[in-house]
Amino acid sequence: MAIKNAFYAQSGGVTAVINASACGVIQTARKHPDKIGKVFAGRNGIIGALREELIDTSLESDEAIQALIHTPGGAFGSCRHKLKNISENPREYERLIEVFRAHDIGYFFYNGGGDSQDTAYKVSQLADRMGYPITCIGIPKTVDNDLPFTDCCPGFGSVAKYIATSTLEASLDIRSMCESSTKVFILEVMGRHAGWIAAAGGLAGQGEGEPPHIILFPEVPFNRDAFLARVDRCVKDYGYCVVVASEGAQYEDGRFLADAGVKDAFGHTQLGGVAPALANMVKQALGYKYHWAVADYLQRAARHIASATDVEQAYAVGQAAVEMAIAGKQAKMPTIVREQSSPYRWSIGEANLSEVANQEKKMPIHFIRDDGFGITSECREYLQPLIAGESFPPFENGLPKVAKLLNQLVPKKLKTEFEI
Amino acid sequence: MAIKNAFYAQSGGVTAVINASACGVIQTARKHPDKIGKVFAGRNGIIGALREELIDTSLESDEAIQALIHTPGGAFGSCRHKLKNISENPREYERLIEVFRAHDIGYFFYNGGGDSQDTAYKVSQLADRMGYPITCIGIPKTVDNDLPFTDCCPGFGSVAKYIATSTLEASLDIRSMCESSTKVFILEVMGRHAGWIAAAGGLAGQGEGEPPHIILFPEVPFNRDAFLARVDRCVKDYGYCVVVASEGAQYEDGRFLADAGVKDAFGHTQLGGVAPALANMVKQALGYKYHWAVADYLQRAARHIASATDVEQAYAVGQAAVEMAIAGKQAKMPTIVREQSSPYRWSIGEANLSEVANQEKKMPIHFIRDDGFGITSECREYLQPLIAGESFPPFENGLPKVAKLLNQLVPKKLKTEFEI
Repeated sequence: MAIKNAFYAQSGGVTAVINASACGVIQTARKHPDKIGKVFAGRNGIIGALREELIDTSLESDEAIQALIHTPGGAFGSCRHKLKNISENPREYERLIEVFRAHDIGYFFYNGGGDSQDTAYKVSQLADRMGYPITCIGIPKTVDNDLPFTDCCPGFGSVAKYIATSTLEASLDIRSMCESSTKVFILEVMGRHAGWIAAAGGLAGQGEGEPPHIILFPEVPFNRDAFLARVDRCVKDYGYCVVVASEGAQYEDGRFLADAGVKDAFGHTQLGGVAPALANMVKQALGYKYHWAVADYLQRAARHIASATDVEQAYAVGQAAVEMAIAGKQAKMPTIVREQSSPYRWSIGEANLSEVANQEKKMPIHFIRDDGFGITSECREYLQPLIAGESFPPFENGLPKVAKLLNQLVPKKLKTEFEI
Repeated sequence: MAIKNAFYAQSGGVTAVINASACGVIQTARKHPDKIGKVFAGRNGIIGALREELIDTSLESDEAIQALIHTPGGAFGSCRHKLKNISENPREYERLIEVFRAHDIGYFFYNGGGDSQDTAYKVSQLADRMGYPITCIGIPKTVDNDLPFTDCCPGFGSVAKYIATSTLEASLDIRSMCESSTKVFILEVMGRHAGWIAAAGGLAGQGEGEPPHIILFPEVPFNRDAFLARVDRCVKDYGYCVVVASEGAQYEDGRFLADAGVKDAFGHTQLGGVAPALANMVKQALGYKYHWAVADYLQRAARHIASATDVEQAYAVGQAAVEMAIAGKQAKMPTIVREQSSPYRWSIGEANLSEVANQEKKMPIHFIRDDGFGITSECREYLQPLIAGESFPPFENGLPKVAKLLNQLVPKKLKTEFEI
């Protein structure tokens, strides 16, 4: 088989470890110069391919590529752009082929969540339907942990560790203050339709009365009266109440507790503001002094408190994607397979993109306690190994060091521009 | 001089390193059994003294006391209770004397911010006015960094490191997303009347176009039009805009951008919600997609990313307080003296509580850039050493280990209860 270049792109919301996957892809590709020529990274994801804005990663030093492993965010830029079906918008696919052909690209690696695996799958269909041979491998990534087939998603473990740590630390704070001041603390966390991240807050405590006292999952319809009664009970019994609330918490009828009224390119409602909404309820109904925090991007960017397990897995799926591609596999996604929980052992498996695309994995119902406000021991057993191990970045002048890339674009070969 | 017991209490908002000061006090006291008998910690600060709820720290193992150095929050409980002047409420002072006498307490160590140094000063006046001999030393602590005489306040350096790190990390995230998604990110930070914490966000970047692009200080009157024009300019020039906003940001007339309408025991307005207020302005005026985060307690509890300098200084002021007390000093507060900035050298000095009480140190005006939206190089030189060095806590099962104290109360000796 002739040597072909590879295209790699980051897609959707970035994470603390998506660059570790990029590192895995590029370092592994560099070990196979007989199969893979250059790795071109899409500037801002698939948009970079459409615009023929290809970053030449071969110009980056080994040190710069190695530094990706401790750099949060998406080093090449990500995007929220969803390809339509080929029948609806063939122009986008024709353009991709044009760009791939111009730059002799034979491998397509797409690093993202459910929407992105869908994109990767559609590109793989090019090979058949449009007669352009390209090997497509999806690389899993999402803090939401909602991809099917894989035991967990790279990116999630680090958010889980950040949220569990932050819940623990903030709980010690409010416990100190509750006698004469703040009695209720609410931490809003990400997780649109699946309560995985909120569940991770539950790792902060375990025994009777230990925080967090209440977790609000998207999977459990929100009941105002039950919530307020529980808050009141906790304050009376323990002196304070710590709440971890998913941004996706919603009423029985599906209305989000905090709907900002903005939708993104995929038609998803932009969420934010569950914590102040809950704080307001507490104030009006119970009158307790409260504090609230919204972690937002801080949680998914927090490379400084990344899980070592997560960093390893993120790297491993990048590496596996390249190995699968050069082994001739098509339309696959490497997965994390849990061999056992304690002591934790995992390996790399694979799933078909055709089956992965656009499926969401919710929390199993037996991971949520019967009262709906906490996690079960099975959930704890699932989550525990994912936050295990520390992988502190190097620091310089008191701040984490991050990769400095050249991000130099390959000269364009096509005459035409493409409007997104 | 006879051996006397000591009373130590934590006061006001707790920090990531106030327990390091407690560790300094207790370990140093244990080295002077010829002067100091037991160290009793007030359960929930001065309230513990009023209620005769004294924690016997002599029952804690050396290991447990050592673990305080990496445990956030207030291990003995803190409070927001301000003693009135002796002439206004002599009952509280009479009660304190009663409790101190009953438990043979000759040393009073009060660990807090401006309000707490005021309390410590008032207690020191007992010695003169009410004929009860007690040595009073204040121990500085406040994330707001607004105590006078000391170059910096223990607790601030760690918040500064957390905010600078979080700003850096979240900026890498939004930079990846801005081409097709979020263009404006707003991080709300603490600091009621002084912009020190907001300024620390400025350490995340330095060069032209590097985030944060806008810092909103309480010291600079908020101008909606200038703010929005700047946001728009940044998005057009750099593709995105990162804003670090102090919770104390206010209009020319003194109205806070986000006044939740709640006041604490000291009559201070409870703040929160600057970030969503700003996000709303951006959305309505410019229509950019935004994200916002409110760090709240997470920032001041974040022991996992504490500054090593801060941890050392917090310990040192605890140690110095005990050494000053046994040297016979009265109504003093140990301070941090900056010997030089680069390389950083500091030592311990002292200030008179009578002068410290109820003063707030604002940011020097030359620390704020002329345009009001950033920090100067002098500010950077001041802040840089305070975030230097890492002091990671030990971890267990993926989470920081924290001190487990017995917190056993000394049997009460007084017949009367005291209503706060």
